[in-house]
Amino acid sequence: MEVRFKKYLNMETAYFNGKFLPKEEVKISPDDRGFLFADGIYEVVRWYKGFFYDMDSHMARMKRSLRELRINWPGADLFPSLANDLIKLNKLENEPAMIYLQVTRGAARRSHSFPSREVSPTTYAYAWGFKPDNLSKESGVKVMLKEDIRWSRCDIKSIALLPNTLSFQEASENGMKECIFVRNGLITEGSHSNIFFVIDGTLFTHPESNHILSGITRKNILRIADEAGIKIREEAVAENRIRLAKEAFISNTSAEVTPVIEIGGNTVGDGVPGLITRIIRDKFDDEINRFKG
Amino acid sequence: MEVRFKKYLNMETAYFNGKFLPKEEVKISPDDRGFLFADGIYEVVRWYKGFFYDMDSHMARMKRSLRELRINWPGADLFPSLANDLIKLNKLENEPAMIYLQVTRGAARRSHSFPSREVSPTTYAYAWGFKPDNLSKESGVKVMLKEDIRWSRCDIKSIALLPNTLSFQEASENGMKECIFVRNGLITEGSHSNIFFVIDGTLFTHPESNHILSGITRKNILRIADEAGIKIREEAVAENRIRLAKEAFISNTSAEVTPVIEIGGNTVGDGVPGLITRIIRDKFDDEINRFKG
Repeated sequence: MEVRFKKYLNMETAYFNGKFLPKEEVKISPDDRGFLFADGIYEVVRWYKGFFYDMDSHMARMKRSLRELRINWPGADLFPSLANDLIKLNKLENEPAMIYLQVTRGAARRSHSFPSREVSPTTYAYAWGFKPDNLSKESGVKVMLKEDIRWSRCDIKSIALLPNTLSFQEASENGMKECIFVRNGLITEGSHSNIFFVIDGTLFTHPESNHILSGITRKNILRIADEAGIKIREEAVAENRIRLAKEAFISNTSAEVTPVIEIGGNTVGDGVPGLITRIIRDKFDDEINRFKG
Repeated sequence: MEVRFKKYLNMETAYFNGKFLPKEEVKISPDDRGFLFADGIYEVVRWYKGFFYDMDSHMARMKRSLRELRINWPGADLFPSLANDLIKLNKLENEPAMIYLQVTRGAARRSHSFPSREVSPTTYAYAWGFKPDNLSKESGVKVMLKEDIRWSRCDIKSIALLPNTLSFQEASENGMKECIFVRNGLITEGSHSNIFFVIDGTLFTHPESNHILSGITRKNILRIADEAGIKIREEAVAENRIRLAKEAFISNTSAEVTPVIEIGGNTVGDGVPGLITRIIRDKFDDEINRFKG
């Protein structure tokens, strides 16, 4: 028993279909529709040594994704509580950490149509501590541009992420920190981030639509920018207008507000994080620190 | 031991990472990139009581899909042999059967970029006997039309099939046997089939491109039609020209050549399988019967 207990302590604890268990013991069925069809959704929430940032918005988005795919997870409301448990069980209370949640339609005989008899969704979550990339946040990053090859329901946070991984891999191999998508000549978003531009002092970002994921950080940035008196336009920027941007930044749950200093091989503004970007980044950090109390 | 042996006999035998084992014992890691990112490919081949139909073409397509995703499966050439083994182990020699193969990039810490150190791909295959849908093949089917919401690399037989399942489910709920996609006003293909039209005596189907999967049955139909002296044009049919079609049919590995008698609520031709469709269907069947010897 003691050996097992020790082993358990050394292992990450995950959540799987209603139970907490060592992550290594989580076994997904080969009939799982997440494995066969990418038929599922995910969510990532951030733990700031004491609280989850805007859990309410993550919950709302998770439920919307489930609704759009017509996956019924009766336990959805328990997510904040199980996320808390994962933080504690993995002793991450005092570290920057993340929770990953995935819900699939469940396991059933392979068929393109939904299972004919009701199956329980597969629910899986785990936690990990991480070191925020403060260097990128401070100095900015280079990003590449690429045709948006994704489907036309990017508003659903689905696990059908193959195009995102292929695009991000290409960016990584070119020394870039993100791949920004262009669809029909318009900038949509990154492979796992939203993007903002400052043109003539106005903050631009793609409006909510079927072509972008509605980022929680994106939404909070728009609020923070508005509170700071910055002029906002939720309007897509054409690829050929990027050169007019004096500033740019990307956002997501882990990158928060990260300046972009080069895009598609061209320097943005003076090649250093711009003023409006820094104001928003710092106000975002202030908000986090206020929550910390 | 005897209990286990009996149990084993009653269970399907699957192939998993180089071994044959009861399908129920196949356990996919939650870190598998197939589960997290739809980062993998699949292939389905058909067993006609004695042989696999056009295994060479399936092999070529499978290798192409792997190349496009840069997944290295050193055992790829063994697929025909393991497919044969699955038929035997599951006692399907004398039944119509299918082999499903899936290869993912493998299991690694979740990151959009490919794993930093080399991981082995996950390889999984299983066999099942089935009853061909001869009624549909004889009498024809109704299909619906829907905007193509998929990504723009449909030429890769990837497991990122969420859009296909959602679309097919919608068709099923409307009593239709397939969902046919329209992209920019042009008919591309079905959620898991190719589609052909006969207009003015010429056989039309979408050309190979990034917007369709190059079906093995599609390719063989084009050959068979050509041999039969039927005029062929690999050219997309516009949605507004469907009404000109006197005949239509869908094709895939299980449906073979299945007539379409209604599309998007409109009757095709006289509402019964057309002459050219029947010629191609029968010649396809003849070819299968010749192989059977």
